[in-house]
Amino acid sequence: MIRFNNDYHNGAHPKILEALMQTNTESYGGYGLDDWCEKAAAEIKKHLDRPEAAIHFLIGGTQVNYTVIAAALRPYQSVICADSGHIQVHETGAVENTGHKIQALPSVDGKITAGQIAAQAEAYRTSCVQEHITQPKLVYLSFPTEYGTLYSRQELEAISQVCRTYDLYLFIDGARMGYGLGSPRADVTLRDIAHLCDVFYIGGTKCGALFGEALVITNPVLQPDFRSYMKQNGAMLAKGWLLGLQFYTLFRDGLYFDITRQADQYAMQIKQAFQEKGIPAFLESFTNQQFVVVENSQMEKLAQHYIFEFDHKVDDTHSCIRFCTSWSTQPQEVAALVADIKAL
Amino acid sequence: MIRFNNDYHNGAHPKILEALMQTNTESYGGYGLDDWCEKAAAEIKKHLDRPEAAIHFLIGGTQVNYTVIAAALRPYQSVICADSGHIQVHETGAVENTGHKIQALPSVDGKITAGQIAAQAEAYRTSCVQEHITQPKLVYLSFPTEYGTLYSRQELEAISQVCRTYDLYLFIDGARMGYGLGSPRADVTLRDIAHLCDVFYIGGTKCGALFGEALVITNPVLQPDFRSYMKQNGAMLAKGWLLGLQFYTLFRDGLYFDITRQADQYAMQIKQAFQEKGIPAFLESFTNQQFVVVENSQMEKLAQHYIFEFDHKVDDTHSCIRFCTSWSTQPQEVAALVADIKAL
Amino acid sequence: MIRFNNDYHNGAHPKILEALMQTNTESYGGYGLDDWCEKAAAEIKKHLDRPEAAIHFLIGGTQVNYTVIAAALRPYQSVICADSGHIQVHETGAVENTGHKIQALPSVDGKITAGQIAAQAEAYRTSCVQEHITQPKLVYLSFPTEYGTLYSRQELEAISQVCRTYDLYLFIDGARMGYGLGSPRADVTLRDIAHLCDVFYIGGTKCGALFGEALVITNPVLQPDFRSYMKQNGAMLAKGWLLGLQFYTLFRDGLYFDITRQADQYAMQIKQAFQEKGIPAFLESFTNQQFVVVENSQMEKLAQHYIFEFDHKVDDTHSCIRFCTSWSTQPQEVAALVADIKAL
Amino acid sequence: MIRFNNDYHNGAHPKILEALMQTNTESYGGYGLDDWCEKAAAEIKKHLDRPEAAIHFLIGGTQVNYTVIAAALRPYQSVICADSGHIQVHETGAVENTGHKIQALPSVDGKITAGQIAAQAEAYRTSCVQEHITQPKLVYLSFPTEYGTLYSRQELEAISQVCRTYDLYLFIDGARMGYGLGSPRADVTLRDIAHLCDVFYIGGTKCGALFGEALVITNPVLQPDFRSYMKQNGAMLAKGWLLGLQFYTLFRDGLYFDITRQADQYAMQIKQAFQEKGIPAFLESFTNQQFVVVENSQMEKLAQHYIFEFDHKVDDTHSCIRFCTSWSTQPQEVAALVADIKAL
Repeated sequence: MIRFNNDYHNGAHPKILEALMQTNTESYGGYGLDDWCEKAAAEIKKHLDRPEAAIHFLIGGTQVNYTVIAAALRPYQSVICADSGHIQVHETGAVENTGHKIQALPSVDGKITAGQIAAQAEAYRTSCVQEHITQPKLVYLSFPTEYGTLYSRQELEAISQVCRTYDLYLFIDGARMGYGLGSPRADVTLRDIAHLCDVFYIGGTKCGALFGEALVITNPVLQPDFRSYMKQNGAMLAKGWLLGLQFYTLFRDGLYFDITRQADQYAMQIKQAFQEKGIPAFLESFTNQQFVVVENSQMEKLAQHYIFEFDHKVDDTHSCIRFCTSWSTQPQEVAALVADIKAL
Repeated sequence: MIRFNNDYHNGAHPKILEALMQTNTESYGGYGLDDWCEKAAAEIKKHLDRPEAAIHFLIGGTQVNYTVIAAALRPYQSVICADSGHIQVHETGAVENTGHKIQALPSVDGKITAGQIAAQAEAYRTSCVQEHITQPKLVYLSFPTEYGTLYSRQELEAISQVCRTYDLYLFIDGARMGYGLGSPRADVTLRDIAHLCDVFYIGGTKCGALFGEALVITNPVLQPDFRSYMKQNGAMLAKGWLLGLQFYTLFRDGLYFDITRQADQYAMQIKQAFQEKGIPAFLESFTNQQFVVVENSQMEKLAQHYIFEFDHKVDDTHSCIRFCTSWSTQPQEVAALVADIKAL
Repeated sequence: MIRFNNDYHNGAHPKILEALMQTNTESYGGYGLDDWCEKAAAEIKKHLDRPEAAIHFLIGGTQVNYTVIAAALRPYQSVICADSGHIQVHETGAVENTGHKIQALPSVDGKITAGQIAAQAEAYRTSCVQEHITQPKLVYLSFPTEYGTLYSRQELEAISQVCRTYDLYLFIDGARMGYGLGSPRADVTLRDIAHLCDVFYIGGTKCGALFGEALVITNPVLQPDFRSYMKQNGAMLAKGWLLGLQFYTLFRDGLYFDITRQADQYAMQIKQAFQEKGIPAFLESFTNQQFVVVENSQMEKLAQHYIFEFDHKVDDTHSCIRFCTSWSTQPQEVAALVADIKAL
Repeated sequence: MIRFNNDYHNGAHPKILEALMQTNTESYGGYGLDDWCEKAAAEIKKHLDRPEAAIHFLIGGTQVNYTVIAAALRPYQSVICADSGHIQVHETGAVENTGHKIQALPSVDGKITAGQIAAQAEAYRTSCVQEHITQPKLVYLSFPTEYGTLYSRQELEAISQVCRTYDLYLFIDGARMGYGLGSPRADVTLRDIAHLCDVFYIGGTKCGALFGEALVITNPVLQPDFRSYMKQNGAMLAKGWLLGLQFYTLFRDGLYFDITRQADQYAMQIKQAFQEKGIPAFLESFTNQQFVVVENSQMEKLAQHYIFEFDHKVDDTHSCIRFCTSWSTQPQEVAALVADIKAL
C-alpha cells in the first residue's frame, strides 16, 4: 500500500535525523534559549526582510493557533475566518476554549475575501449596540488553505489593506507554507507574507520535520512576553533546541523549499493524470493536496493499492477523495499512481 | 412620545413596588436563602408538575445563559442554537468566554428544527475524527424567539425527542416566556415546557419585574452545586429576597400570566392594524413583538409620535421596524397607534 | 431578635424606594444609557476631582471584582492581594475562573504592605525565568478590609507609589467604602482614593441601596470598551437606570456619607461597651464591623436576642464573633445591645 | 564544563535515536493511533496491574498537568497542592488559565501530608457558605518532589485514603518518576503508584526521551473523551508514533528503570562527597537532585568546571545550589566532581 492520505505519515527528512544524531551528546540550555534556535531564526530571517521580527519555535499547529489568538486578543474580541478554517472545524474548539468567538464566513474553495472581512468590520464599527457584540480583531487565513488553494498576491494585499484600515491583526496559518510557496501558481514569497501580515507560521510538521512550527511575529505590538504565553499554553518544549535544529537544517540551504516544491510537482502529475482521465477536480488546487470526484467503483479500485482520504460523499455513486503528496513522496509512488489512474 | 421600542423601558408592575415598600424594614438572610425565594419557588412549582425541579433566581438573561451553559458542559462540548439566537448575536461572546463553541444553525423565522439538530448530533456521532471536533451537548432555544415567533408543541416535542435520543440537554431561554405562553397561538403551557426540556427560565425583567429571571432546572443531573456556579459567575444577588419577592408577587395570583397575555392582545391589535393597512409583516408573530416592513416615509411619520426599534434596511425605500408591547403598555397608547396606522 | 449579622439584611434607604416609586411609570433607555446614570455619575464626580474618570454602575461586588480584573489583565498576569481578601476567600474562585492567578500574601489585620507588594514585583522583575511565572500586574485592596480595618493615607500612598514604580494597577474594593470613609479614624477622602488608585468602586449594596456598585475607572488605559466587558460578564443591567437612580439618591445630598458615618458611630458605641466589659477585640476596627472574642457562655446569652456572625472558634471556651452595624441600624437596637453587653 | 544543572540538557538515549532512524521511512496513522503507541502502552501496563487503565502520550509536563486538571474538574472545583508544587510556582499560571484555583498548602521538604489535605477537605465539607468557596476536588503531588524528596508508601497510602474518603482525585506528577522509583530509599513501585492514585504520568523528557510523558488514567471516571481534551489543549502530536516509539524503547526491556537508577546512584556518590566534606544538604534527597548549602567561595570554585543551578541565597556568604544527575550523566563526570568536592 502506498500512502497519499496526508503529509505527516513519515518521520523526518534524513538530514534532520542526521542532525539529531550528530548533536545528541551535546548539552544545551532549555526552553528554546540555545544556539540552534538562534541560528534557525537567523536563517529564516534571511527570507523575510523584517529584521525586527520575533521568531519562536512551537510544537504543533493547533497549539500555535490558539496560543497566538489568546495572546493577541482581549476577552471581548473575536476572530474572523473561513467556515472551512482549521480553527473552526478541526481543533476541538481550542480557540473558544481560550474564550474567543470565531466569526466563520462562507468561503469559496476555502477562501474568504477582503470584501467579506470589510463588511464584518464595518458592521461592528457602525453598530449602535457595540457592547452587545464581539469586536472582530483578528483575521485568520490559511496559506495554502485546507483545500490546497492559494490566495493570490492581489487577494492578500486587499485583505491586508482591509486589516490595516480596520485595525485588525492578520494571522496566516502556514502549516503547509512550503507547499503553498512551492506551487507553480504561487505569486508570493515568504518575504511578501512577512510584509502583508502581523503574524504567521512556517509549518515543519507537514514539511519535513519530525514536528515543529516556526512562528514569526512581525507586528511589534504582538511580541512582548510571548514566551509567557507559550509556557502557559504548554507550547514551550523543554529541549527547545530540537526545534531550532530542525528548522536550521531545513532553512540552512533551502531544503525546506526544495522538498515541498518537489511534492507540489508530484501533485501536479497526479492532477494531470486525473484530468486526462476525465475525472473532475472537486476544486482547482495547485498545491500538494488534490481533491477529485471519482466514481465509487474507481475509488474501490484505487483503494487496493493506495491509502488516500475520503472527504465526503457526493452522491450515491460518487465520492470526493483527497490525494496528498509530501516531502517524503517517492517518484516511483507517483508513477505507480499515475499509471493506475490511466488504467481506471 | 409613546414607547413601543422594547419591553424593558419601565420600572415594575405597581404590585411589585408595593411589595418592596411593605417589606423594606424586614430583615432577611442573604444570597437567596430566605422565605420569599422559597415561597416564590413554591408558587412557580404549582405550574410545573415537576416537584423535583430546582429553582434559582438570577438577575438577568445573559447571566443565566452563560451560567447554565458553563455549569452544564465539559470543556470540549458545544452548544447548538439558531443563528439568530440571543447567545449567538447579542451577548458579546459570553458563552465563548466560558470556553464553549456555539454551533449556530441557519434559522427560519428565528427557529431551528429537530431535523437540523439531529443532523448535527449524528454528524458528531458518526465522525471518525471525534476528538478533533466539539461534541454538541446542549440545544439552546428561545421561547418565544428573538423574532417573537413560537415553537409549536409538536416542534418542541420533536426537538425534545431528538435531544433525548442523542443525550443532549435542552435549554429554553424564556426571557419573554410570559408573552410566549400568553399568545393566542401558543399550544403549550409552562407545565409542558417543564416536561420537554432539562432547564429553562421564566423571564421577569421583560415581564413585570424590576429585574430577575427564575431558572428552573428539571434535570437532576444539572442540579448539584448550582449555587456555586451562580456565585462564581456573579449571579447571586446579596439581597436575594428581592428576587423571590418579585416572583412571588408575579406568580401568587397569576399576575405574570395576566399582564403578558394582555400585552399580546395589544400586539394583536397593532398587528391587525398593519394588516388592514396593507403593510406587510416581516414575519408572522403572534406575541408582543411585531416586525413590519414599512415605507421609509411611513416610518418617519410614525417616528413623530412613537419610539420603536429600527431592525434593518430592506431596500432604498423600505425598512423593517419592530413594535413591542409590554406589561406596561396602556390601552390608550395602543389605540393611538392603531389610529395613526390607519391614518398613514 | 435584632440583626447585627451583616450590612445587607434590609431593603434600601426609604429615599431610594421613594425615588423608585416616583419614576416607576417613566420610560428610559436601557443598559445604563439614561439620564439617571449620567446624573449619578456627575454627583459622584463632584467628590473625585478626576473629571476624566469613567463611571459605570454594576450590580454586585463579586461581579465588579472579576469583571475589572478580566478587563485589566492579559492571560499571563496575576493579582496580588491579602490572603484574607474577598476575591481570595469568598468568591468561589471567580477570578481564577477568568483565567488569572491570585498571589495571596500573608496579611495582618486584613492588610498587606507596600513592602510586601514591592517584594513580589521585584521578584518578578529580577527573575531569570520570567516566562515560567505569572507577572503580578494588579494589586487588589479592600477599603475597609474584610475585618473592618483601614489603610491609612500613608499606607495607601506607599502602596500607590510601589504600584506606579512597578507599573501595577491598584484596584480598591469599596464594597463598604462608606463605612471606611465615615470612620473616626479614616484619614482619606473619596478624592484621595480617586487619586491614589487606578480603579475602585463605591459600594451600594451594603450602604443603603437595594443593590449596586458604582465603579470608577480613573486610569484611561482601563477605560476603553469597558461596557463590552460588562455585557460579556453579565454585569450590565437591562434597566440600568435603577442603578443610576439609587446612586443619584445616595449622592445628591450626601446621604451616602451620612448613613454610613452614623453606622460607624453606632459601631463605636458597641466597641466601647465590649471594651468596658473587658471583652477583647479580635482586632482593632473603627468601622461598622466589630470582631470580639467572647466566652461561649456570653455568646449564648447574646444569641438569645441578637443575630450576629460566628467567625471562628478561638479555643474550647472562647469564640470570635462579629457584630455589624449598617445604614439601617436603629439607635434603640444599639442601646439594647450596649445594655445587654454591660449586663453580661 | 560539565553539566549538572538539570536533567534535560541532552538529546535522548542512543537507543531512542536508533529506533527513530530505523522507522523513519515507515508510514503510520496520525495522532497517536498507531502500533507503537499501542505497544508502548502494553509494555507500560505490564508494570501496573491495572488492565483497565487508559494510557496516552503527551509532549511535556506543563501540558499534561493543565490538560488533566481541565478534564477532571468542574469550574467551581479547585486543586490542592504543595506551595512548592510545579503547577503553583513554575507553569505561568497554566492551571488558573483553565479556570481553576490552586489551594497551595505549606510544605516541608516539598511534601504535604494526608492531615493537611483532610483539613482542607473537611473545611469545605463543613462550611456553611460552601457556594462562596471553591470545592477542593483534586490533589496534585509530585513523585519525586521538586526538591527530589520522596513520599513513602505509608505517606502515599494515607493521602490516597484521605482522597477516597473525601472523593478527591489523586494526581501524581511523575516528570521524574524514574528517579523516584530508582532511589535507594523508594519503597513503592509503579504498580503501587497505579493503585494509589487516579491518574499519574511517567516522565520521558527528563528520563531518556527526546520529549514525551506517558499519562496513565486508572480511574474510569476520568477516561472518557480524554483525547478530545488532548486535542483541545494542543497536546496531541500529529506524528504520535514518535512518542509511542520512544516509550516502547524505554520500557521494552527496562531501559527506563536502568538509566534512572544509575543516575540516582551517581547522585548518591555526589551526596556522599558533600557529606564527607562537611557541606550540609539543604534537605535530604535520595534521588537525582541534590541541594547543598555551600560557601560562596566554594560555589565559585565549583563553577570553574561545572554548570549547576543556583537555587537561592542563604546568607551573605552561603548559597543553596543544585546538582542534578540524569540518564546521560557519565561516570567520569561524577568522578571528576567527587574529586573536586574533596579538594574544596
